[in-house]
Amino acid sequence: MNVTLSLAERLRAFIDIVGETNALTSLDDIKPYLTENRGLYQGASPLVLKPGSTAEVSAIMKLASETGTAIVPVSGRTGLVGGQVPREDSQDVLLSLERMNKIREVDPVADVIIADGGAILADVQKAAEAHGRLFPLSLGSEGSCRIGGNLATNAGGTAVLAYGNMRQLCLGLEVVLPTGEIWDGLRRLKKDNSGYDLRDLFIGAEGTLGIITGAVLKMVPRPRGKQVAYVGLASPEAALQLFEKASQRCGSALTGFELMPRIGIEFTTRHIPGVRDPLASIHPWYALVDISTSDSVETAEAMMQELLADAFEARLVSDAAIASSIAQQDAFWHLRESMSDAQKPEGGSIKHDVSVPVSRIPAFLAEADAAVHALMPDARICAFGHLGDGNIHYNISQPVGADKAAFIARWREVNAVVHAVVHKHTGSISAEHGVGQLKRDELAASRPAIETELMRRIKQAFDPAGIMNPGKVIG
Amino acid sequence: MNVTLSLAERLRAFIDIVGETNALTSLDDIKPYLTENRGLYQGASPLVLKPGSTAEVSAIMKLASETGTAIVPVSGRTGLVGGQVPREDSQDVLLSLERMNKIREVDPVADVIIADGGAILADVQKAAEAHGRLFPLSLGSEGSCRIGGNLATNAGGTAVLAYGNMRQLCLGLEVVLPTGEIWDGLRRLKKDNSGYDLRDLFIGAEGTLGIITGAVLKMVPRPRGKQVAYVGLASPEAALQLFEKASQRCGSALTGFELMPRIGIEFTTRHIPGVRDPLASIHPWYALVDISTSDSVETAEAMMQELLADAFEARLVSDAAIASSIAQQDAFWHLRESMSDAQKPEGGSIKHDVSVPVSRIPAFLAEADAAVHALMPDARICAFGHLGDGNIHYNISQPVGADKAAFIARWREVNAVVHAVVHKHTGSISAEHGVGQLKRDELAASRPAIETELMRRIKQAFDPAGIMNPGKVIG
Repeated sequence: MNVTLSLAERLRAFIDIVGETNALTSLDDIKPYLTENRGLYQGASPLVLKPGSTAEVSAIMKLASETGTAIVPVSGRTGLVGGQVPREDSQDVLLSLERMNKIREVDPVADVIIADGGAILADVQKAAEAHGRLFPLSLGSEGSCRIGGNLATNAGGTAVLAYGNMRQLCLGLEVVLPTGEIWDGLRRLKKDNSGYDLRDLFIGAEGTLGIITGAVLKMVPRPRGKQVAYVGLASPEAALQLFEKASQRCGSALTGFELMPRIGIEFTTRHIPGVRDPLASIHPWYALVDISTSDSVETAEAMMQELLADAFEARLVSDAAIASSIAQQDAFWHLRESMSDAQKPEGGSIKHDVSVPVSRIPAFLAEADAAVHALMPDARICAFGHLGDGNIHYNISQPVGADKAAFIARWREVNAVVHAVVHKHTGSISAEHGVGQLKRDELAASRPAIETELMRRIKQAFDPAGIMNPGKVIG
Repeated sequence: MNVTLSLAERLRAFIDIVGETNALTSLDDIKPYLTENRGLYQGASPLVLKPGSTAEVSAIMKLASETGTAIVPVSGRTGLVGGQVPREDSQDVLLSLERMNKIREVDPVADVIIADGGAILADVQKAAEAHGRLFPLSLGSEGSCRIGGNLATNAGGTAVLAYGNMRQLCLGLEVVLPTGEIWDGLRRLKKDNSGYDLRDLFIGAEGTLGIITGAVLKMVPRPRGKQVAYVGLASPEAALQLFEKASQRCGSALTGFELMPRIGIEFTTRHIPGVRDPLASIHPWYALVDISTSDSVETAEAMMQELLADAFEARLVSDAAIASSIAQQDAFWHLRESMSDAQKPEGGSIKHDVSVPVSRIPAFLAEADAAVHALMPDARICAFGHLGDGNIHYNISQPVGADKAAFIARWREVNAVVHAVVHKHTGSISAEHGVGQLKRDELAASRPAIETELMRRIKQAFDPAGIMNPGKVIG
């Protein structure tokens, strides 16, 4: 391949790989690929390619490396850090996995699913369910997000406490490298100590080291019993103590422990149709406690009753509702999962996706609140999330009646004070959403220098031409 | 530092870092560090250094990189692949973590232990126990192996089914790089998606990318109930079906599922004092089933009873013993854990540490047995291990009366036919023991070439001077 092709010739050669019908070239068609949900980034691209096979992805990358063309891998486009958006004013070519959406195989004895990188998460969940198993990754965007993106961002969600992040749910990968070479690492092995851990390097690399075109995913047995409670609490301290009790009492049966503030319940009941407050009394904080047991419904029920009785006696909990049906269990979860959407009608929201050691959550919340209120006395802090994972979505809704644009313009300023508290508590400013463009420079500035240096060397070793999702993760 | 030092001057400079009393220079003192348990390797070294702090390890590596001195990190010296043994006829300097053996901190709210790289595994287990928690890594060598080595080899053991390998039990690391720089990655975070996964790259790298001097380890709640059964089975197929039943029935409560052959029971009862066959009847195969529950002893008991009743009814199991006391539970495990030692009095043993997808275990065993018996009709195959993980220690004792040396001389020849069957079933020839020297070249030859190439680039990026445990993992 001649590297002196004109831009038009180059794009033509890319289109020829996938065929005319699988390439988007008009601005109208390309437009949806140039932004992300929050509207924080606006990229540019002359071309979207939709390859239909790993071989086509390989051919695209081979051509890209020969012609020095930057490629941005696109999965379900639900990412929140700009990782899937091409660079501004760029000629970056987008490579969408949307046509590679098959479940390749389900092996119920080895308890694995082999899926294309473009398979939709909900389809993987359904495939597991059809075999009486559970694929535990669960996210708000599960109806449209895709496995390749879930892996590239090491997705978390609401079941991490019991089942881990995406990294813990993957046994093997198929990856197309920046050169177009294919790494067939589609292993179904629970144990394999045969060299450096390439799999976990590609997972979480946000498409900057290669494109994940296939994966071996772990299924787990479906729990037989499940119970969910919604608990009113006086403080994050009380929530932490309840979490400790639940963790010791339930062990691996504790499958969810979510923290929510009163304001989040107000936003949700106000804006999300059908959502109601499960408790008659009002509390400053709430926890959603989810217990799943392998033996029976009765065990889950008994465990929850015992836990709450114990917590009432210790005066940790002042009011609680235990779901009386599966529909009510779902309703409790729906309330929690709607909390982010419920903020939208309240105006602008400045967001943080942070984690601290679980024991530091109360101190983190108190100090971050003080820092934010010092900056903006009327800011409405809606901090909720996965207390059991130490992961809080520390979101701040604009003051009532404030100007949205002026509020959002203070995004970085607010980030700075919140992240300072995170660092003080040895936390992470990117707990589960990843780095993308949004946190690239801030992370490079706050990490130990040697850590960024090692990451740069890895990037250089895998993608010496710098064509693989450039500008993301590492500058 | 001048790089033109003589060897003697160079060794002197290393000794000055740790002090005379913490350096071994006489051959008698150094000797125990030059071999490993099986006697497969015999290395050479002029010096063993025992640094007392991360700063001293850093100073050693700085000097090593300036003078081009190869350093071999030494942990508990229980590895089985020659990873801890210096090269033959070499001037490799050994760096032992034995003095860095402290538990730095236990944080029961965040459920973590921070330990030195040289902390002994049993001490970490005890520290967790003292706080009412469990550190689940469990190995035959736990009384002497050290956390740094457990991490460097991504150790497995008998509780992987429920709790994962060492990689799943570690949240953060402190690593001294080949240059002497210290990476402080001692994070206590359950979630952290802030760049490439350096932690999992150092874990399993067998000391070839850096030296693990500290780690943040996860504790889990202690199970309240436990039951162990010892089950007679007709075949590996029956064992696999029982495993599937147990897995579906018990979910995460299934904490162990070990397979053992009749000959292993014979060796163990013959050679290990106090071990007896728990069943009166004789069976070709046996399974040890371990159930741990978070709620109560009764649940574990009921779950085991129900599982076995179901298995009897399905005619999968013909005889079984359920432990009647904790002492008997321990005795059942002791039988299983003594199986490797019990082979020693039977003469030479050619070993394999392989994994296949769990569903392939019966086919693997049948085909490997046929291949080995075609080569050596009287070989006594003692294949046992972690069926639930797909990980079999496929060990072959010499024919009765054969010459041990002549038998052992056929190690590679036997490996070749067994590993061919492993590859056919898309397995790994290094499931949990690692690569070291033993499997370096065979893995390089059997992996996809691009995989070895990527590993070489990582090695080059982290250790351009090639001084970090050279000759191990990657040639």
